Amino acid sequence: MSYGKMFSILKEDNLSNWNSYIKHDFVIKLTSSSLNKKIFLNYLIQDYLFLIQFSKAWSLAIVKSDTLYEMKVAANTVNGLINFEMDLHIDLCGSYGISKIDLENANEENENIAYTRYVLEAGYSGDLLDLLAALIPCVLGYGEIGLNNAKVIPEDFMYHKWLKTYSSKEYQKICDEVANMFDNAILLRLDKNYKDSYKWNNIKKIFSKAVLLEVDFWNMAMRLDK
Amino acid sequence: MSYGKMFSILKEDNLSNWNSYIKHDFVIKLTSSSLNKKIFLNYLIQDYLFLIQFSKAWSLAIVKSDTLYEMKVAANTVNGLINFEMDLHIDLCGSYGISKIDLENANEENENIAYTRYVLEAGYSGDLLDLLAALIPCVLGYGEIGLNNAKVIPEDFMYHKWLKTYSSKEYQKICDEVANMFDNAILLRLDKNYKDSYKWNNIKKIFSKAVLLEVDFWNMAMRLDK
Amino acid sequence: MSYGKMFSILKEDNLSNWNSYIKHDFVIKLTSSSLNKKIFLNYLIQDYLFLIQFSKAWSLAIVKSDTLYEMKVAANTVNGLINFEMDLHIDLCGSYGISKIDLENANEENENIAYTRYVLEAGYSGDLLDLLAALIPCVLGYGEIGLNNAKVIPEDFMYHKWLKTYSSKEYQKICDEVANMFDNAILLRLDKNYKDSYKWNNIKKIFSKAVLLEVDFWNMAMRLDK
Amino acid sequence: MSYGKMFSILKEDNLSNWNSYIKHDFVIKLTSSSLNKKIFLNYLIQDYLFLIQFSKAWSLAIVKSDTLYEMKVAANTVNGLINFEMDLHIDLCGSYGISKIDLENANEENENIAYTRYVLEAGYSGDLLDLLAALIPCVLGYGEIGLNNAKVIPEDFMYHKWLKTYSSKEYQKICDEVANMFDNAILLRLDKNYKDSYKWNNIKKIFSKAVLLEVDFWNMAMRLDK
Repeated sequence: MSYGKMFSILKEDNLSNWNSYIKHDFVIKLTSSSLNKKIFLNYLIQDYLFLIQFSKAWSLAIVKSDTLYEMKVAANTVNGLINFEMDLHIDLCGSYGISKIDLENANEENENIAYTRYVLEAGYSGDLLDLLAALIPCVLGYGEIGLNNAKVIPEDFMYHKWLKTYSSKEYQKICDEVANMFDNAILLRLDKNYKDSYKWNNIKKIFSKAVLLEVDFWNMAMRLDK
Repeated sequence: MSYGKMFSILKEDNLSNWNSYIKHDFVIKLTSSSLNKKIFLNYLIQDYLFLIQFSKAWSLAIVKSDTLYEMKVAANTVNGLINFEMDLHIDLCGSYGISKIDLENANEENENIAYTRYVLEAGYSGDLLDLLAALIPCVLGYGEIGLNNAKVIPEDFMYHKWLKTYSSKEYQKICDEVANMFDNAILLRLDKNYKDSYKWNNIKKIFSKAVLLEVDFWNMAMRLDK
Repeated sequence: MSYGKMFSILKEDNLSNWNSYIKHDFVIKLTSSSLNKKIFLNYLIQDYLFLIQFSKAWSLAIVKSDTLYEMKVAANTVNGLINFEMDLHIDLCGSYGISKIDLENANEENENIAYTRYVLEAGYSGDLLDLLAALIPCVLGYGEIGLNNAKVIPEDFMYHKWLKTYSSKEYQKICDEVANMFDNAILLRLDKNYKDSYKWNNIKKIFSKAVLLEVDFWNMAMRLDK
Repeated sequence: MSYGKMFSILKEDNLSNWNSYIKHDFVIKLTSSSLNKKIFLNYLIQDYLFLIQFSKAWSLAIVKSDTLYEMKVAANTVNGLINFEMDLHIDLCGSYGISKIDLENANEENENIAYTRYVLEAGYSGDLLDLLAALIPCVLGYGEIGLNNAKVIPEDFMYHKWLKTYSSKEYQKICDEVANMFDNAILLRLDKNYKDSYKWNNIKKIFSKAVLLEVDFWNMAMRLDK
């Protein structure tokens, strides 16, 4: 299993932290149906707020693109997020008595802010590569969680639906497109010797930090058990 | 004919310049089939480069949105621009021997730069209202040109196709959505007494300037007759 | 003691959290000379990284200004940060064996990232008022800590020097200028009925969040005792 | 005479356009005291509006810096612009009956908008190198005009004062610092083989375009003779 070359390299460089992320207690418990429902619902609420900022970050990727191809991949992702993934969260929350207004008025936790603002700021201050380096741990990490647990069928409807979303062909297609675009974007700008470039070093730093911020996002989820 | 309340007010305040824009010689000649083809083709090339920046500006509108509704309208517009309008330009140019590579390597004229960078910078430095004030003269001006000339059928295939695009139901629907969103965005932020606000004054300045930059875009088109 | 009208209102609305911030254990221990030195040195390192981002946020305030007066106040603050406060950190750290290179290569903690990126993103996505609402809890909170403890003379040289910096006339002058500019910037844009505006509500939200992120910054400092 | 290595290369690549800029009719007439005073005063007004945006662009350069050295050079330039050059324009205009309020309310011409928004957008959308590539034609072009005419003493007080500003040691020092920083910023990010990089190609495009936009700025000045 692999989503493109660059992601594989970056993941290998951060393997221990990567596993702390995609094999986090939250994920282990969810897949074994032992996750506290309050924790999951609070996570969904935070993730809704997250997706708003994340959609904005992908919109910024359109602005920062250098080619029509890059613009199109980013625009497809924005479309998937705004017109599908967010509605899914609204529906899922709705079926558990959390209204759209509850979602919009929910308090954004500091760990949530930390990751989304890190991504957005990387996009505003940097270029497309900086932004993508901050975005892909989320997109492809959830893709891996989906694939890793594609055959798991939790009893709980919510957990089942959540897992199915990320193991679905539609989501996996987005992962492949994004990973390809990341590979191409790096090769276009940094050429074959990209590993020797100053920029590659920055990409590595941003990717590493984003993985740690993802781990903290799960940590936050486990804390919110009220 | 009117696209929302705020646009009507802004247009009335700038009526003379507005007419210099939507009834520009370029438009008059195009609708009477007396426009030099070289001028039109050069315009199409510049407009392709324009649409790239314009799509980016609408993507920035997603980033600058305060509600999911605003995000969705902006995202639909981005989608319309990137996946339809730009392909139309590529096809139309292609049928006249101008390749996609020609388009991408074309020199961006100063008047083209002036308008697109004005819009993008208004978006980066300002908020959603500043950005929309700079965007709507383009969206709704082309909508008016389409409606004003909906029954005109120029002999020339290119001119016919161009006019049909902007008088089409699809394009007019985008105009209505954008105009509605602009009205709502202003009322949400500035309330019923919006006309007394500092912000409204800025919106007026930006709208006026954007109309003048549109006039200069047509002026540029008329100059490029080689 | 008060730094302008708007700040007073915002502070009163968040008094409990505000006190958790300016009377945090870190401050209490520092002023009573019972703070672990490792904790202080680790804090200084994080604060150096913080100041880099903070200087950038104040530079963004110049970009987002509407008047020459606003530009000048922001530029003076940038100058104070880059040419004085940062050098002070470098010197202070240097005298304890932490080199400039150590500082630049230090790992930026998640809580540090959370606050600085929150501020920068508020500036990029919003306008000057959003940005100032995120900046002033830091500027004026440190000002209050300085004033509250102006007569405290800790035995430890480092703690003494740190306190003196923030109680100094120079720093207090910056606080007054910034607070005045904040008052004027709000009145210019929102007028006397500012409390009824949509924008004021946003300012309140951003200010509240920024105070909580400051509390977490001290929490982080207390954790870094290795 | 040369301001650093990178600038020399870029200038040589654009020599004909560069000369159209620094030896523009406006400059020729100013140095020979045959320039219409109305033209000069209108230019001063436009240049005041230009300097506001230009100061903002240099402030953005602080935000986009990767090192403290880069931040300091950019901050010094901001300081020079906001606290000295702009006041000079205000004074000079004042002595000819143009008040500060006249300056602030003056209409920003399209060619003025074109250049400043091009620079700011290059900074927002790109990185420090993109931004510097757009900024240096202005900084160093005026430096060359100053040096080229250092011994010219026009009869007219205004023209004399204007020339002296740009030939002064203070201004030339800024030019040297900026040129050095540009050289270092490129070498840091692109290494010795910078000429083979994708980025260098972008830098060349931006520099070329900025020179043409400067030429149009003088063209505009010559037009404003009312």
